[in-house]
Amino acid sequence: MERELKTRILHAVDTLLDDQVAFLSELTAHPSTRGNEQSAQNLMARELAARGMEVDRWQVDVADIRDMPGFSPVIGNYDDAVNVVGTHRATTTKGRSLILNGHIDVVPEGPTDMWDTPPYAPRVDDGWMYGRGAGDMKAGLASNLFALDALRHAGLTPAADIHFQSVVEEECTGNGALACLQRGYRADAALIPEPLAEGLVTAQLGVLWFQVRLRGLPAHVAYASTGSNAIDAAIPLIAALHELEERWNADDRKHPQYADVHHPLNLNVGKIEGGDWASSVPAWCVFDVRMGLYPDQDLQDLRDEIETTLQDAAQKNAFLRNNSPEVVYNGFAAEGYALSEDSSQAAAQAIGALETAHGLVTGTALETKSSTGTTDARFFGLYADTPALVYGPKAENIHGFNERVDLESMRRVTQTTALFIADWCGVTTD
Amino acid sequence: MERELKTRILHAVDTLLDDQVAFLSELTAHPSTRGNEQSAQNLMARELAARGMEVDRWQVDVADIRDMPGFSPVIGNYDDAVNVVGTHRATTTKGRSLILNGHIDVVPEGPTDMWDTPPYAPRVDDGWMYGRGAGDMKAGLASNLFALDALRHAGLTPAADIHFQSVVEEECTGNGALACLQRGYRADAALIPEPLAEGLVTAQLGVLWFQVRLRGLPAHVAYASTGSNAIDAAIPLIAALHELEERWNADDRKHPQYADVHHPLNLNVGKIEGGDWASSVPAWCVFDVRMGLYPDQDLQDLRDEIETTLQDAAQKNAFLRNNSPEVVYNGFAAEGYALSEDSSQAAAQAIGALETAHGLVTGTALETKSSTGTTDARFFGLYADTPALVYGPKAENIHGFNERVDLESMRRVTQTTALFIADWCGVTTD
Repeated sequence: MERELKTRILHAVDTLLDDQVAFLSELTAHPSTRGNEQSAQNLMARELAARGMEVDRWQVDVADIRDMPGFSPVIGNYDDAVNVVGTHRATTTKGRSLILNGHIDVVPEGPTDMWDTPPYAPRVDDGWMYGRGAGDMKAGLASNLFALDALRHAGLTPAADIHFQSVVEEECTGNGALACLQRGYRADAALIPEPLAEGLVTAQLGVLWFQVRLRGLPAHVAYASTGSNAIDAAIPLIAALHELEERWNADDRKHPQYADVHHPLNLNVGKIEGGDWASSVPAWCVFDVRMGLYPDQDLQDLRDEIETTLQDAAQKNAFLRNNSPEVVYNGFAAEGYALSEDSSQAAAQAIGALETAHGLVTGTALETKSSTGTTDARFFGLYADTPALVYGPKAENIHGFNERVDLESMRRVTQTTALFIADWCGVTTD
Repeated sequence: MERELKTRILHAVDTLLDDQVAFLSELTAHPSTRGNEQSAQNLMARELAARGMEVDRWQVDVADIRDMPGFSPVIGNYDDAVNVVGTHRATTTKGRSLILNGHIDVVPEGPTDMWDTPPYAPRVDDGWMYGRGAGDMKAGLASNLFALDALRHAGLTPAADIHFQSVVEEECTGNGALACLQRGYRADAALIPEPLAEGLVTAQLGVLWFQVRLRGLPAHVAYASTGSNAIDAAIPLIAALHELEERWNADDRKHPQYADVHHPLNLNVGKIEGGDWASSVPAWCVFDVRMGLYPDQDLQDLRDEIETTLQDAAQKNAFLRNNSPEVVYNGFAAEGYALSEDSSQAAAQAIGALETAHGLVTGTALETKSSTGTTDARFFGLYADTPALVYGPKAENIHGFNERVDLESMRRVTQTTALFIADWCGVTTD
């Protein structure tokens, strides 16, 4: 690609930046938590259609995907789970096709009184945009969209097919991205601008969600010793799970990509609920757990180990000994994925193209990272033989209060993305 | 009271027993949990009116009672909290006036799948009636009502005023009984047929409810170490509260009435809730606790000790050290009460009358008990100088699953109550 062309692309991103920030603000204002993604997806579909793309919009159907590798179990239905894909169909194909992927779902905002300003009233302060989802990952969706806009503004048309995916369910199952695979979307590479601070993710963990359900023996608290308190009973089980966590984080069990990471596998008790009345010995307690696993670790082995751990701990409780904790798998059953282990030519070329674009925009070498979370990249890498580049802007407090994204970082990522598209897909001039 | 009269009363109870069981079944079918007492109170008001009593029915107003001793704080309003009192106004007063008190509220039934049969579809099996509230304490209300019916059936009219109280809020504050005091209801004694297996309660504990609210520092679980898990943080605080519980149950701190009770003061974590998402470090956790206290123990001292215990435990947590747990008092702020310490002549006479009636019905001496729970008796005893007799039928699994009451025991208690009324209030023959 000639130097003048690159300069035009970079300038186009800058020219459109105000529009991009306005779009990000509008998108962040949609509280697209699980089950509430529709208005944000409406916006995405409108924007894609307005750019002349073919828009495909469909409700995820569990029946279509439940037998595919990578499927995560889900409780409830997908009545409100709608994916949107916009396709740029190249009239002249010179380069390689590309999937630009991003997720529209955001995690719950938590108690709003702990936010400095309301989570769905985005604001910009000192170069950061604040809001739930601004970083994770609506800035990434904005980057994908405005990278394409910048090319158009520069008078360039991608010379290969591009599928722009706005998917649901990334934060709990990945079944939105899986449904795109099932629907037949394929390309030579995928780019997912998750907020990883302009580093390339070369390994990501798997994630397993599980729910532990305990029964107790209820009684009037005046006769508490005749009952069995399900909340008290949960405590040693949680402790046993944390011991399992520590065993897995020992140096001798670490995956090579995580050898230098202090504590890669986090076990998180993220939700708990139990009991109905202060003066009744609680008859039930339920808690939800997230556990990480290494790219080479088997999900079923981990499930077995978790269940053994819980049953062993339950043996020490007189009531639970005869009333086993129930373990329910609902949500992430995600394997780990390491781009670094993809020895294909396509992977090497995609990484090379991103390195070049990143270097041109930032003047620095592309850093690689091993992520302690998961992303939808695993579907492309593990189940569709497609190298997936996770590379996005800098954000802070994702999943926390006062989540924010660095707008200057988003601008650079948009530039890098535009250059990457121009290189990977090729361009024609109008 | 002549022998023949007593026999007529006892027979009358037996004659009406089928009606009483039918009434108890109907009353138990009303799911009168907190906020849902109205339909059950409608039934009570109709039944009292049908018996020719003056019916007083009013909504409890916090403003009327909040400055009275014995008031328990309440969150929310009392829009649905309706007390019912039916008064038998004696035309000829020969004896002493009486309050027959019972509570209409029941505690939540918990997961209904843990009941053998639905909690609000009462059934009789082998002499027991099953259902939430059948024992605690709708059988007591039925006993009060049918004791009066039996007298009437025997051609007798109580020769003193009787206030039949069906109150709300016994299970969480006692503010229903307190509102009866505020409204001016007074008598020479009170009888409360709580399900204590035909024993007389001569001491009852106080009960304090409190809620502990913890904050956490939320984060994406991939970076869990940057957050502070509010659910994990609750665990050592709960442990510290249980240590406080053990200190209070030590022999050298026991109240004399509880010297022989193994573990009189139960601390119960009865509810817990926290977190919003398995993969977010939870930002909050709230748990509800019930703690007992001795009749001579000061509520404020206990509150201070609880708060000190929590703050000391919080010091060991890096995040909580600067984000103190919040303690909220909502519900029971109930002092203990010992009828055994009431040296009045009225108390001695009331106990004597009950002993006589109990002996006649059961052929056994009246056992006394120190209850490890609380009842509304404290309002009469502590704040209205009125001896309150807690004496009711045998029940099992109160606050648990498959709660049940022994109908034969209810029959005996009804007989004892009818004899007691005839003795205490005197009777005139029609």
